[in-house]
Amino acid sequence: MTIKLGIVGVGKIARDQHLPVIAANPAFDLVAAASRSGQPVDGVPTVPDIDTMMTDHPEVVAVTICTPPQDRHVIVRDALNRGLHVMLEKPPGSSLSEVADLPGLAAAKNVALFATYHSRFAPAVAPAKAWLADRKITAVRVRWLENVRQWHPGQDWVFQPGGLGVFDPGINAMSSLTEILPHPPFITSAELSFPANRDAPIAATLAMTDIAGTPIAVTLDWRQTGEQIWEIAVDTDAGPLVLSGGGTTLEAGGAKTEAHDPHGEYAGLYRRFAELVPARRIDFDTAPITLLADAFMLGKRTTIDAFDW
Amino acid sequence: MTIKLGIVGVGKIARDQHLPVIAANPAFDLVAAASRSGQPVDGVPTVPDIDTMMTDHPEVVAVTICTPPQDRHVIVRDALNRGLHVMLEKPPGSSLSEVADLPGLAAAKNVALFATYHSRFAPAVAPAKAWLADRKITAVRVRWLENVRQWHPGQDWVFQPGGLGVFDPGINAMSSLTEILPHPPFITSAELSFPANRDAPIAATLAMTDIAGTPIAVTLDWRQTGEQIWEIAVDTDAGPLVLSGGGTTLEAGGAKTEAHDPHGEYAGLYRRFAELVPARRIDFDTAPITLLADAFMLGKRTTIDAFDW
Repeated sequence: MTIKLGIVGVGKIARDQHLPVIAANPAFDLVAAASRSGQPVDGVPTVPDIDTMMTDHPEVVAVTICTPPQDRHVIVRDALNRGLHVMLEKPPGSSLSEVADLPGLAAAKNVALFATYHSRFAPAVAPAKAWLADRKITAVRVRWLENVRQWHPGQDWVFQPGGLGVFDPGINAMSSLTEILPHPPFITSAELSFPANRDAPIAATLAMTDIAGTPIAVTLDWRQTGEQIWEIAVDTDAGPLVLSGGGTTLEAGGAKTEAHDPHGEYAGLYRRFAELVPARRIDFDTAPITLLADAFMLGKRTTIDAFDW
Repeated sequence: MTIKLGIVGVGKIARDQHLPVIAANPAFDLVAAASRSGQPVDGVPTVPDIDTMMTDHPEVVAVTICTPPQDRHVIVRDALNRGLHVMLEKPPGSSLSEVADLPGLAAAKNVALFATYHSRFAPAVAPAKAWLADRKITAVRVRWLENVRQWHPGQDWVFQPGGLGVFDPGINAMSSLTEILPHPPFITSAELSFPANRDAPIAATLAMTDIAGTPIAVTLDWRQTGEQIWEIAVDTDAGPLVLSGGGTTLEAGGAKTEAHDPHGEYAGLYRRFAELVPARRIDFDTAPITLLADAFMLGKRTTIDAFDW
């Protein structure tokens, strides 16, 4: 039984990742795409919204929501209320309070709900988690250093209030970190660097710990030129572990493994969704976005030089 | 069977509220007080910490934690791990991630855990909630306007990172608001006014809504001189409701009721804790602090004139 799927929102991430990955997964049959702006999708009928999708294609039982987080809450509630299984691009919403009712609604409707964090499905993340599970961890250093001009050229929205700034990639770091550590980390202090002409930080340092008192130092910086660094380094009683390349490379116990698959993370997300749907299960972890909100609540703000593209 | 109680942290709020309220409630028997700085408490033996408390007074089965939120997490986990029932002053911790594991730990230990929000126990809050339950709500306006120089004279910590600024009283507004509204509110945008020489906002405006699309406008301001205003005004299909005086006065349906009892809110908290302990129940709502974190995450920051005492 294939899962008759609809996709809502067909912007860059839908085209780069979701559509090719869905096409390659025999568990799913993409029936329709919804686009408010009427963007066509090759080989799939497009409709303006979920209401039309369900009228024209009542066989749809599940939807992936790839619209921007700002308007997502109403769409997700609507889909759940129609009894559809729902998978969400990250972040699950624009605020924590906004998404708080979604797991309860999904449970009441007896449907699957999946808040995705694609970085958790990078090939070296599960092996890193398994390797760390038995070790005593003495220190953790996270460096997520990338060039905003390369990855978000001219996209002013990332620096608007709610745009999250450097925490836009930072949620990937937080989703990987919370996945591999045996104890949930939390923030004790933070420093956020706001460009004088912007409403979101371009860099941040976080001091974190966990119930074992592990020192966890996080550096996020969007001003990195040259080599882009997405790395979690963990000191343990069995030597260091380094998860780098955003989860593609693992060095631990004297061995190094690398795996590159441009669609590997999203393929993992859809394999997971294919398990959740028939089981009607909820996978809705808010830990990564909670760490972001905590950083904003606890963080000392420093104003730095203006940033222009 | 009285509940043998210990109190941890004997600062201003413990002396102003907890100690007299405990003394007046026959359900509790205050056995010992813990104070790291060795503050004496009339008529009760004092100890430096929970460890000594449990050695000297093993009959203690429950503790109230009134220490500052910064160090609270370790103390609360320690108390829960010892199998003690725990009641917490607000906020439940210094961040959301930090407190996320506490309900699970309390459940695992089969003890009661109570995150208190005293404003919810103001005399007019429950009647306001009951009156609103059947009404169609068309708009909500919250004004929480007080003079920081009067309520926190010279207390620089309130303006330090993590000190929450005007959200220190704002959590009272949020706890009352989330209590009386039939649908959970969430923030759609916010504006935070930071004095040029301070690390926390002295004023904030929040635009909120709920699943019914209700417009909810919140104004928090710590620069209010003259009359202090703690008010939630709700427009409904049955006319307006105004909850004012921080929950002591209710005007609704043409009737006005007022009740003043300086210990009424905390008396309500301890009556509730006396119910939770024998039932080993968990009352740990993070909605108020979640709204604070969301406000910091979504809020546009404006720098205003320096603030000095």
